[in-house]
Amino acid sequence: MMHTGGSEIEQLIQLLARLPGLGPRSARRAVLHLIKRKDSLMLPLSQAIQRALEAVVECEICGNVDTVSPCNICVDPRRSQNLMLLVVEDVSDLWAMERASVGPVRYHVLGGVLSPLDGIGPEDLAIDTLIARAHEFAEVVLAVNATVEGQTTAHFITDRLAAMDIKITRLAHGVPVGGELDYLDEGTLSQALKARTKI
Amino acid sequence: MMHTGGSEIEQLIQLLARLPGLGPRSARRAVLHLIKRKDSLMLPLSQAIQRALEAVVECEICGNVDTVSPCNICVDPRRSQNLMLLVVEDVSDLWAMERASVGPVRYHVLGGVLSPLDGIGPEDLAIDTLIARAHEFAEVVLAVNATVEGQTTAHFITDRLAAMDIKITRLAHGVPVGGELDYLDEGTLSQALKARTKI
Repeated sequence: MMHTGGSEIEQLIQLLARLPGLGPRSARRAVLHLIKRKDSLMLPLSQAIQRALEAVVECEICGNVDTVSPCNICVDPRRSQNLMLLVVEDVSDLWAMERASVGPVRYHVLGGVLSPLDGIGPEDLAIDTLIARAHEFAEVVLAVNATVEGQTTAHFITDRLAAMDIKITRLAHGVPVGGELDYLDEGTLSQALKARTKI
Repeated sequence: MMHTGGSEIEQLIQLLARLPGLGPRSARRAVLHLIKRKDSLMLPLSQAIQRALEAVVECEICGNVDTVSPCNICVDPRRSQNLMLLVVEDVSDLWAMERASVGPVRYHVLGGVLSPLDGIGPEDLAIDTLIARAHEFAEVVLAVNATVEGQTTAHFITDRLAAMDIKITRLAHGVPVGGELDYLDEGTLSQALKARTKI
């Protein structure tokens, strides 16, 4: 006897619920929010998704997503000196670095991390293409997450790059800016103490 | 110098960030999630929004959203006895009641609550249409939220309905099923004690 909108509404709820950060409940709220704002939000959103669907491509060089390939970062003349190649797990990490305005760096998106348990081996990541272009850069920074899988992946890549004459670095560990010591784990605190710097 | 996808991507992020439950950060994650699943999620979502845009209408009788008007609830023959009219603030409340399988009731969606501070008066809510149809029902249940605005709205409607010979009720206050007393406010606890029932 339950009626909560037609099947068009139900289907939209189910698809939105598959987005990260939205569950069935918040997807329902989001759909009602959209329906109440047909002209000001729902129609523009529909058009924006369609435009993005048509425009977005993966960069053939670095794996970034953009509306052109090679992407705007790869062809940016201010980054052409190839000082630093930042190796990241995911496009979201690339975006996070760009938001931090880290300078004229370039990127290589691995597309994940090594995870034998999930059946993800080196051939599933963009590692061969990384090895092929790494020699173009003065320094390769392994900007992977500080997780077990991230560090395993970093070690694997370091081994593969060892034969080449490239400086390989990783991001520093330490106290996040604004972070409270009380809430940090012992590993971070001991690393932060070891890497202490002079004031 | 920052490049995080093209303007098509940025615009989609900004629109998604306007959904309740999603901020700029989670909208970015959602867009990346979509871009990685162009065929399995992004295209179906685009089509679902378009279909919903074309199909969804507001019910001319009760204010529910559906793909037909009058909505499926208003024309449901099993609800035609008009035993109970549940007056709710919002379509989301109607859906919540329907999920709770409350029986062959019908609804009236007010479209909000009285809120003088926000400039929302009786003429902004579906109150006149409620008064016009209330006499068709044996009982009107004011199923508004237990907030100050909800209760103010309930009082206003009760006054307007007073002249008619209709039974007017409200939802019971009490301990939520599964709720722990320790986390409940004093108002709820004292109401729950007053309305205690025999085991």
